[in-house]
Order: sequence, then C-alpha cells, then structure tokens
Amino acid sequence: MDTIKTISNDLNLVRKKRPLVHSITNYVVMNETANATLCIGALPIMSHAVEEVEDMVSIAGALVLNIGTLEPAWVDAMELAGRRANELGIPVILDPVGAGTTKLRIQSSKRLLKALDVSIVRGNLGEVASLAGIAAEVRGVESISASGTPDEIAAQFAAIYGCTVAITGPIDVVSDGKRAANIANGDVMLSRLVGTGCMSNVAVAAFAAVQADPFLAALGGLVSFGLAGELAAQISGDRPGTFGVELMNALYAVNADDIARLAKISVA
Amino acid sequence: MDTIKTISNDLNLVRKKRPLVHSITNYVVMNETANATLCIGALPIMSHAVEEVEDMVSIAGALVLNIGTLEPAWVDAMELAGRRANELGIPVILDPVGAGTTKLRIQSSKRLLKALDVSIVRGNLGEVASLAGIAAEVRGVESISASGTPDEIAAQFAAIYGCTVAITGPIDVVSDGKRAANIANGDVMLSRLVGTGCMSNVAVAAFAAVQADPFLAALGGLVSFGLAGELAAQISGDRPGTFGVELMNALYAVNADDIARLAKISVA
Amino acid sequence: MDTIKTISNDLNLVRKKRPLVHSITNYVVMNETANATLCIGALPIMSHAVEEVEDMVSIAGALVLNIGTLEPAWVDAMELAGRRANELGIPVILDPVGAGTTKLRIQSSKRLLKALDVSIVRGNLGEVASLAGIAAEVRGVESISASGTPDEIAAQFAAIYGCTVAITGPIDVVSDGKRAANIANGDVMLSRLVGTGCMSNVAVAAFAAVQADPFLAALGGLVSFGLAGELAAQISGDRPGTFGVELMNALYAVNADDIARLAKISVA
Repeated sequence: MDTIKTISNDLNLVRKKRPLVHSITNYVVMNETANATLCIGALPIMSHAVEEVEDMVSIAGALVLNIGTLEPAWVDAMELAGRRANELGIPVILDPVGAGTTKLRIQSSKRLLKALDVSIVRGNLGEVASLAGIAAEVRGVESISASGTPDEIAAQFAAIYGCTVAITGPIDVVSDGKRAANIANGDVMLSRLVGTGCMSNVAVAAFAAVQADPFLAALGGLVSFGLAGELAAQISGDRPGTFGVELMNALYAVNADDIARLAKISVA
Repeated sequence: MDTIKTISNDLNLVRKKRPLVHSITNYVVMNETANATLCIGALPIMSHAVEEVEDMVSIAGALVLNIGTLEPAWVDAMELAGRRANELGIPVILDPVGAGTTKLRIQSSKRLLKALDVSIVRGNLGEVASLAGIAAEVRGVESISASGTPDEIAAQFAAIYGCTVAITGPIDVVSDGKRAANIANGDVMLSRLVGTGCMSNVAVAAFAAVQADPFLAALGGLVSFGLAGELAAQISGDRPGTFGVELMNALYAVNADDIARLAKISVA
Repeated sequence: MDTIKTISNDLNLVRKKRPLVHSITNYVVMNETANATLCIGALPIMSHAVEEVEDMVSIAGALVLNIGTLEPAWVDAMELAGRRANELGIPVILDPVGAGTTKLRIQSSKRLLKALDVSIVRGNLGEVASLAGIAAEVRGVESISASGTPDEIAAQFAAIYGCTVAITGPIDVVSDGKRAANIANGDVMLSRLVGTGCMSNVAVAAFAAVQADPFLAALGGLVSFGLAGELAAQISGDRPGTFGVELMNALYAVNADDIARLAKISVA
C-alpha cells in the first residue's frame, strides 16, 4: 500500500477507534492541544500527578510528553508514565520544547530520551539540532538558526537516538535513520499562532495509536495537521486569531479525500 | 412561581448582583471557564493556594471544585476552601472529572464528598455512576457506558450522597432525591468542544449564588448553558472552532426571554 | 521627537528586533498572553522553574511578573528571575493581580516591589490603590471602587514606589511621579473578555524591550493595545467571543500609521 493510502486509512481508523491520547504537557497549550486531539478524532486526557499517571496511561493509545513549561516534578511524572507506556507497548511521543535555550531543557530532554524508549521526537530545527549536539540558536521556543539542513540534522538525530524524528518548519522532515521524507503541506500562518507545534504532536500521537510504524505515524499526523493549516489559512488570510479558530474547524473537517488530493510528501 | 419564571428571574439576578464565583479547577479549561463565568454575568476568580483560598472564598457567592488535572495538593486546597464555604453558607459545586478512570480520581472525589457539604455534583453519566458504585466505563473524561439510565443513576447518587446531582449528556438529568427533572436543551456540538462540562459548572454556580434551592440552581444553570449551546450551534454548524467562539457570544446574549420561549424542562 | 512618533517607531522596532518576552504568569491567561506577545511582534516564553528562570531571563528583552493564580513557590521564581533581570538591566513589569482581595496578594506584591527594581507596575484602579495604602474594593480581579481618581492614585503610587505605574480602565493613566499621561484609546469590550489586562502587560513589556524610558514604554504598549481593542470592537460589536478573536487579529495588524491617526494621548 502506498504512503498516502496508508495515511488516509489511518485517519479513518483514528475516527473509528477514538483512541485516548494522554498528554503531560505545558500550561500554555493545554486547552488548544486537547481540542486538537478531539478535532482529529481521538479523545484527550491531560493528567500529570505521579499518583495516577501510570493508571491513566494504561488505558491510553499513545502518550505525549512536552516540556514546554518545564518543572522537575513534572519530568518525574513523565518518566513514570513513559516507563509504564514502554512496558505496555504504548507509543511515546516527546516534544523537547525550548531545548537549546536553557541547560535544564537539554538535561530534561536527554534524561527522558535515556530513560524511555521514545517512538517519535517532534521539535523545531534548533531544538532537534541542540539535542544532536549541533550548534543552533533557540530563542524561547522559536528556532532561529542551526548549522545544517533539516535533512542532515534529522538523519544525525535519528542515528544518535535510534528513533523517529520529525522536524517541523517551512518543510517538515521525518527520518527514522533508514527512511526519510519531506512534507510540503502547511502554511506560514502556523508560525503566527502559539502552540501549533504542540498541536501537531497530538495529531502524530493519534496516528501512532493506530499505526505501529512510527515513521508512517509521524507522516500521517504531520500531513493531516499541515493540510488543516493550509485549509484554515485559505479562510483566515493573515489574521492569527481567525486562523486559530479555523485551524480547529479544519482539523475536524480534514478527511481521507483531502489527503489523497492534497498531500505533498516526497519519500527519499 | 413556576420553574421557568424562577430561572428567568435568577438569570436577571446574576447579571444585577454580579456574584464572585471562585473556581479551583483544572489547567485545561481555566481560561474558557473564566470567560464563561463573565459571559453569564458573574465575576470569575481562579485561586488555589492553601495560603489564600479561605480568604478568597469568603467574598465569593459560590465555590466550584473541579478535579480535571488532579493533584493531591490541590485537593487539600479544595477541602480547605470547601470547609470555609460550608461555615459561611456559600454553596459548593463539585465536578468529579474522570471519576471511574483512575483510583486517585474516585478517592479524591469521595474524600471531598465526605469532608464537605456539597450542594451540587455535576458530571457525566460514567463519572456519576462510578461514584454511586454502578458499573461504568469512562475513557479519560468521556463517558462511554454505564449500567443504568441517567434518571436511575441520578436518583441513586442523590440517595447515597444526599445532595443535588446533575448529569449532563444528550438529555440533562437533575435530581435531589425528592425531585427530578430532564432538560432537553443543548446540542451535539457541546460534545465536540473541550471543557463544556466545566463551563456548565460555573453557570450552575452563578445561579447557586443567587438561588438558595440547589435543585433550581442546577436547572437554571443547565438550561441557560444548554440554550446558549443551541443558539451557538445554529451559527457555527459542524465547526468546533467557530462553535467555541459562538458559545461565548451566546452565553453573553442569552436572556430571560430566550428562556421563556425555548427552555425544554420536564419536572417529574 | 514627539510622543506619538516615538511610539510608532518603537512598534516598528519591536517587529524588527522580535525581543523575547519572558512571562511568569497565571494559568488562566498563559495562552492568550503568549499569543498577544506574538501578535504585537515579540517572541513569548513562559517559564517558571527556579532551576531555569535565571538562564531564561538572561536572553530576554523584558520580564513580566503576574500573580494571577498566586502560589508562594512561584513568587520565589519571580524574585529569582527579577533579581537576575535587574543585574542585567532587563526591564521588569509587575501585574499585582487581585491585590486588595487577600492578604497573600498584598504581601506577595509588596515583597516583589521591595526585592526588585520594578520598571513598570500595571494594574487596575483597586489593585494599585490597595498597594498605595488607599481604601479600595477589589472583587476577585475586578476593581469595584477606590477612594480617589486614577490620576491621584497613580501619582501617589509612583511617589511611594519610585517607578512608573499604569492604571488601566475606561481611561488609562500612566505616571512616573514626574510625568503623567491619559490614554483615551480602548473599548468597553476589553472588560468583557478575561485577561485583557494581562495581555496589555506583554504589549508594555515588548515596548520596554526596545524603549529605555519606562514611561514611554508604558504609553506605547497601552496605546497599541487600546487601539487594537477599538479596532476589534468595531468588528465584533457586543460579542465577547468574537471580540477575543478579533483582538488578536487587531494586535497583529495595528501599525505605525494607525497610531499616528488614532492615538488619543494627553500628557500632563
């Protein structure tokens, strides 16, 4: 089956099975991430207490760890939940938000990557480069520059950490060390709204809950999300507030037909 | 005075008195809940520090406790605030989010129900059933199934805990053990936006701040909120992002005339 | 250079330099505040862990401290970040949310004002009056009344604390003890949406990152924000949900020409 058919099928599967996506994520994007989870067709739960994360993740289809408003106690909960997810074969998606900005963010990301079997890391260019030991500038949560192309940096990251990595930007890049793909869906408006990276994580997680191959799950989530961004921008134009509303409408509406017609994937 | 006239009067009273509604609630819905509080006509405050919750609740008209992003330290604050509210005769509304999903959620909900004189419990069918000891499936925050009808489960819950209970769903059910009512207002779009249950809590709380009978306060809040959902869906259609925006517009605009014309309550 | 030209230039500078604005703020408004930061042209970061706030603020152009969902541990982080900002000459903006409502809020605000060299305090009339020792009523986060005019209270606050103070309301008042100004931009809709005060803080902070005079930075941020509110209300009318969306659109679109045409500042 070709990639686009797989993605279309997986999107239909998400909407049929409605997997629970458990997010331990940052305060800034919790609402928008939960709504994005619901719109793509899965069910959201946000839960971070060490007393319950193992119970919660046990009924989930995927686990998202996001260090946006990082606090060491939350990383403890992420590790606990992640270990349980690993035991049960539940895919773990990590977003190393702001890695490269402070020591704590690099350390916490590396701690999770070492302790856990992470399926997919999703970040921007500077974050992924910083974790791969490549010089980069990250200003807060924004990637400013990095020494290398997204393709090179993704390949290097995948080689070091042995997992699938997805770098989002003007062109999204996905690599698992053996396979690589570029996705040309998306719109510049995605950079004018806070939390679109975080929302793309849950799209990837929803796909990972129904698709055992992390490389294909990352492609599915990012194509669907990028396409929703394109469709939303056609309505909103250059208005970030309106774009935020239309992005949810589009995530809910985007379907297998849209993917067949509009996906722009090139697999290397 | 008949029920619908009471509700209409109470809505006018909320907007005249602007009671403070103190919420100790989850991170996911704080903004939307605060805006819903403001739109229905009350004033919101979110405050959770054990060092100040007793001071804060003392000037409030109602207290909302919501265990959505549950953490034991927050339950301590909820209990402190709730005890003070009880001393001062300020109504307490509890939303046992996700009860039935993890042990911690059942335990925390029961702890609050035991320690406090709760006026109104508002939850979905699975959450309320789980607390009443009735078999149910809750997936994250979503009720999947329960062994019994909403009317039966509400009656059983009210009998066990001796308070008013409101189960929201396609048809809302309110019971205080002696009286029971069904509300047919609302729209399926309320299930496609995160936090609508949480928003309905503050509508109920705003009514409880001006209406001493918890059964009537629950009816007033849920009719007003359900009606706002209906009116919003007429504009948004099947677009969840737009529905979120229009729900706030409708909560702000819904008035006593709308209630007189459109409320669908049947009191048993 | 006259005031309006300075503000216009500063807005252009914000959009050219894209300074990082580090916020340690409340849960209720984090997303909206981050989006407001991005829309005005700066880059947002929300970070509150004592383990990293000093590193984070070191690369920021301004620091915003906001005690909305106050917790003592967060005030520790605010103090740490603020001390480092002071060492590095990075301007600190304080929003004493709800000061006057509880003892903890007055104490925490005074603690920060004593420990730090705060450039600009931005609050509502009741909050600022309470900190200046003037009788006032604050209900949650809403100013109900105060014994004095905004101009008098601002002047007294600036004299006591030796910093610039901005009181927002129907007419915004800015004073640094020597200079005073009134701003007549804005719209009543700003009072029907949660967090508009908090959003105005980050507009002020973005200006402070490029304008060394706190008095002019406060004017720049509040004129730009008030004007965005006016433009948004022209589209939304009396619909708070729509206003929230249009406010982001307007913050993104408002430009130097709008300021030249529409700013309503009177400097005393």
